[in-house]
Amino acid sequence: MRVGVIGGGQLARMLIAPAIELGIEIEVLGEGPGAAAAMAVTDVGAAHDADAVLAFARDKDVVTFDHEHVPQAVLQRLVAAGVAVRPGPGALQAAQDKLVLRERMAALGLPQPRWARIDSSGDLTDFLAGAGGRAVVKTPRGGYDGKGVRVVTAAQDVADWLDDAPLLAEELVPFRRELAQQVARRPSGETALYPLVETVQSDGVCAEVIAPAPRSTGRVADVAAEIALTIADALDTTGMLAVELFQTDDERLLINELAMRPHNSGHWSMDGAVTGQFEQHLRAVLDLPLGSAEARNDWSVMVNVLGGPADGDLDARVPGMLAQHPAVKLHRYGKQPRPGRKIGHVTASSADLAEAVFQARAAAAFFADPPVQS
Amino acid sequence: MRVGVIGGGQLARMLIAPAIELGIEIEVLGEGPGAAAAMAVTDVGAAHDADAVLAFARDKDVVTFDHEHVPQAVLQRLVAAGVAVRPGPGALQAAQDKLVLRERMAALGLPQPRWARIDSSGDLTDFLAGAGGRAVVKTPRGGYDGKGVRVVTAAQDVADWLDDAPLLAEELVPFRRELAQQVARRPSGETALYPLVETVQSDGVCAEVIAPAPRSTGRVADVAAEIALTIADALDTTGMLAVELFQTDDERLLINELAMRPHNSGHWSMDGAVTGQFEQHLRAVLDLPLGSAEARNDWSVMVNVLGGPADGDLDARVPGMLAQHPAVKLHRYGKQPRPGRKIGHVTASSADLAEAVFQARAAAAFFADPPVQS
Repeated sequence: MRVGVIGGGQLARMLIAPAIELGIEIEVLGEGPGAAAAMAVTDVGAAHDADAVLAFARDKDVVTFDHEHVPQAVLQRLVAAGVAVRPGPGALQAAQDKLVLRERMAALGLPQPRWARIDSSGDLTDFLAGAGGRAVVKTPRGGYDGKGVRVVTAAQDVADWLDDAPLLAEELVPFRRELAQQVARRPSGETALYPLVETVQSDGVCAEVIAPAPRSTGRVADVAAEIALTIADALDTTGMLAVELFQTDDERLLINELAMRPHNSGHWSMDGAVTGQFEQHLRAVLDLPLGSAEARNDWSVMVNVLGGPADGDLDARVPGMLAQHPAVKLHRYGKQPRPGRKIGHVTASSADLAEAVFQARAAAAFFADPPVQS
Repeated sequence: MRVGVIGGGQLARMLIAPAIELGIEIEVLGEGPGAAAAMAVTDVGAAHDADAVLAFARDKDVVTFDHEHVPQAVLQRLVAAGVAVRPGPGALQAAQDKLVLRERMAALGLPQPRWARIDSSGDLTDFLAGAGGRAVVKTPRGGYDGKGVRVVTAAQDVADWLDDAPLLAEELVPFRRELAQQVARRPSGETALYPLVETVQSDGVCAEVIAPAPRSTGRVADVAAEIALTIADALDTTGMLAVELFQTDDERLLINELAMRPHNSGHWSMDGAVTGQFEQHLRAVLDLPLGSAEARNDWSVMVNVLGGPADGDLDARVPGMLAQHPAVKLHRYGKQPRPGRKIGHVTASSADLAEAVFQARAAAAFFADPPVQS
């Protein structure tokens, strides 16, 4: 069983451990030297270089992804060459293009923010008029972690983007919090549903995840599960699917974005679930039976290590953190510290939510500037 | 932080995942192509080839081991060259040479079977006379998994071994069961004690481990812990130490053997403890603060996958096992099936011991011949 992963970032890196456990050969197409997944990089090439991707993919039983930046034309060439691409190009479109996402969710009748396709400044002016004068405008492709997203009050606020129209405009959703629902799905249709989690963003970047989402009543969890399962089946996803959701002030769940790969909202599961999302993704894309997605503890809290110390010396912070937090699990991504960059995460599990939150936040703080005094 | 591992077997392989997590560079000196730890093999050479080992070790922050077969002369050359060797040669002697082990345990006043050094057939005849006419004779070096061990009733039973004397003779211990106590120790002296476990051997090979050992009263656990901590401190071990123990019919604990590396009796901890033994070994040899060695479940049961299917097609057995046992964790070693060979293990955890035993045994049975009908 040989899996090829396109992209050598931390998601590819975190696929290596379960591949070793399950006896799966894993080979990675990295963008260059120093990739987070360097240990498994066998080929170097850009995700948009069809020849490089095809040469890499030819001897793999299945090809999957570290990110969603492989162009559709490249994906189609892989499929035409007989490569098993999972998730497939059709499903991936909804994770690659936010306009496609909105169109498909609308066709499925699933709840989402009010939205419009924007081809001109007139379109946006009209949308703003109907949305109380404020809207979120997104570039359909290439945005991530807050990039390619602006809150606007006039069409001129995105004048520099309109040449690349269409754009997506959405209402500003008055939400209480953000949630994420993950589900794994095999080509055969088997699914495994993870607990609904709460995600806390900071400056558009995921900062913290609480599993399960506190105070999520049976109804909220049921609706989230139904949304995720509906999407997985309708889009014929394979591997991990993450559905990012807004929980509105009036208790509705609205679909924000999709990711069709392991996702930051599921990192807690590596330590906190019977089957971590990276193992589950491998099982799913290889059409192996899925593992239990049950939580192993009452509460797990994951906090991202963002940026890291200004002096760049992450190693120096490790002993202090490990000494103070012997039950916290540390995951590093082999990346140099840089402001705002995701360079690792920590996970704490406990029967007590407050304790798990404290442990995870305090552990992550060791890697921030100024350092924690210990 | 760069760790070098001498030997490319499954123990080296299982060090890779926690090295990735903690951001530790891991490089392995393998014996040849197709090593279980192939993904991390950077050099090829025999453990007794001092030049190869020294060339491998020079740029490592610390060197540790997949096995105990590195000759003392090679270890001494590493130390003389300024390499941090952990555990050190002095400690390793007691894991490499069973006569040294008996002498050191005797000097520490620790409980062990009656034993004698055998230099001649006369020595063995004398020992047999004082031991009821039966004894276990062991070659001091190189034995493992039942090799280099014979039950004898006369000196002529080991006539072929006496040219290589000294040998070790031990009384046949009337034991109820076998136990193992693991403890991790850092150079700074910090220790982390794992739960006492029961190990079940079959034909001299570890078949099954139950964590914690059932019906181990506080006294048994306390004595085992004290024995292990005494040995770790007195021998100045670094990394994981496993003390194999006999629990006798009259409720004494006697030391059988030592291992100063991750050990089969601790594989359960990868899934069943907060800090698995492989992560703990890396922390300990790098002198990083140790992690919690607490169990994550009431019961964890590990069953070895020995031999594998006669047709050699382990892959074909995986889907059936995963489908029937969604909460069992599978670990494969990247080795070809061969009668009696350890090619993987499975671990089941549960609040109910009988359930954990059933799940682990039933899952492992999928990889045996004849296959389980499902």
